[in-house]
Amino acid sequence: MKLETTIQGLCASLKSARAEQKIIGFVPTMGNLHQGHLNLVREARKKCDVVVVSIFVNPIQFGPNEDYDSYPRTLEQDSQLLETVGCDYIFAPSVEQMYGNKPRLTNISVSNITADLCGLQRPGHFDGVAVVVTKLFNIVRPDYAFFGEKDYQQLAVIRQFVRDLNMPIDVVGVPIARAEDGLALSSRNGYLSEENRQIAPMIYKTLKNAEQELLQAKPLDEVLESIKVALTGAGFIVDYVEARSLELQKVETFNQDVVLFVAAKIGATRLIDNLQVKYIS
Amino acid sequence: MKLETTIQGLCASLKSARAEQKIIGFVPTMGNLHQGHLNLVREARKKCDVVVVSIFVNPIQFGPNEDYDSYPRTLEQDSQLLETVGCDYIFAPSVEQMYGNKPRLTNISVSNITADLCGLQRPGHFDGVAVVVTKLFNIVRPDYAFFGEKDYQQLAVIRQFVRDLNMPIDVVGVPIARAEDGLALSSRNGYLSEENRQIAPMIYKTLKNAEQELLQAKPLDEVLESIKVALTGAGFIVDYVEARSLELQKVETFNQDVVLFVAAKIGATRLIDNLQVKYIS
Repeated sequence: MKLETTIQGLCASLKSARAEQKIIGFVPTMGNLHQGHLNLVREARKKCDVVVVSIFVNPIQFGPNEDYDSYPRTLEQDSQLLETVGCDYIFAPSVEQMYGNKPRLTNISVSNITADLCGLQRPGHFDGVAVVVTKLFNIVRPDYAFFGEKDYQQLAVIRQFVRDLNMPIDVVGVPIARAEDGLALSSRNGYLSEENRQIAPMIYKTLKNAEQELLQAKPLDEVLESIKVALTGAGFIVDYVEARSLELQKVETFNQDVVLFVAAKIGATRLIDNLQVKYIS
Repeated sequence: MKLETTIQGLCASLKSARAEQKIIGFVPTMGNLHQGHLNLVREARKKCDVVVVSIFVNPIQFGPNEDYDSYPRTLEQDSQLLETVGCDYIFAPSVEQMYGNKPRLTNISVSNITADLCGLQRPGHFDGVAVVVTKLFNIVRPDYAFFGEKDYQQLAVIRQFVRDLNMPIDVVGVPIARAEDGLALSSRNGYLSEENRQIAPMIYKTLKNAEQELLQAKPLDEVLESIKVALTGAGFIVDYVEARSLELQKVETFNQDVVLFVAAKIGATRLIDNLQVKYIS
């Protein structure tokens, strides 16, 4: 495994792989890796000859009051974990390496599917994601790129601009990795107090419960409302509870496969989760 | 020379060239080719192993009152010309092939350098250019791409987003091709009446005259004013006359290399031209 911190260095390293037409797999991350990320790398390892993992805390996807400065940076620990799952190259560039010192004038925006869910509370967030992922795609030029379904809306946005812009990349979504008690793994879980860590798995429990209710034909709006009530009762401040189609379009009734989305704060930590519910006609 | 009308067909054709690590050159055009375009292909031929020319009248870069419907489509004649300059592949996709039948949600915008000159009269134009050029780049994946300096602002916009998004492509600007009387070659020259075609070369004459005046230390604002007066006197309706740095930043005095820009209507036809003037200190 090799660590590259410059674009030039990474490109030089990948040159021979490309010349030999090896399949390149890419896992973009912001570091502070957990089993969720490692699952992405394992998937990449299965499908690809060469696996590149980027670790870059991208300033332009954080809002002014978000946790950019305090976001955990744990490169050494991340490197050790990546070694165990067969990563070939870590790409860990500086902000200057990625954005240079001339002003960036170009923006990429995806309309409609970014307008709500996490987009509502985080204006500009998905533009920042679209720009950095496009930059990384152009630097790494992978055949496959792997993203977690935990950030389902992000995955949908990436699939959308890859299709709209004809990027020659297969985007692979990988199921959410969960702790034994059901909490979706996230770098932000580290912010939770011990007490709140005990409460956090409620999100997944309410989602699984909602799945049962839907399959028992309880109306969708009532099911969503009951998630809200349960989470509020447990001490969460609910940001949204929503149902969408797999392509993020609004859904009024449970008459197709849906994704249930939750974003809620416990203490100062905002957690998100989602669950796909299959429609059986 | 081979004509490809589908993305899949073109990609299949280029696959072996890519496997053999051949240098791929790309010339995006809207067809109705003239010597200016052919010069781009000649440049590509010099630098590259494989030359791809796209012919696609891109609907999303035309405003609602612009000439999308009437824009000349002359594929047969274009093919004959391209054969003479050593083009390997013509890529002439349909609008459906390029934009599919699902709605496009992704936009690319470049700020600052698109705000005036042609951007002012053509809102959304450069977004449409950025999107289609990015799509074409992702389909063709060239090593070099060739653009005329006639559309200098477009060239600057393309250089900007290529740099901002780390696209692995060398953008090559090629000097303006002119008729013997100095008129910059353009597909839109075909719209000119015989009488207006006689008047049109005035644009280049006033630019060359302005160059002389600048070199003789006449103040920049007076030089720009004299271009306006001369063109208006000749029957043009002047849209803009401006001086900019090579990177399109505003310039108050002639103390660096500048580009002089003109856009003006004669009859119903809008013509643009520009001239780089070297500063000798």
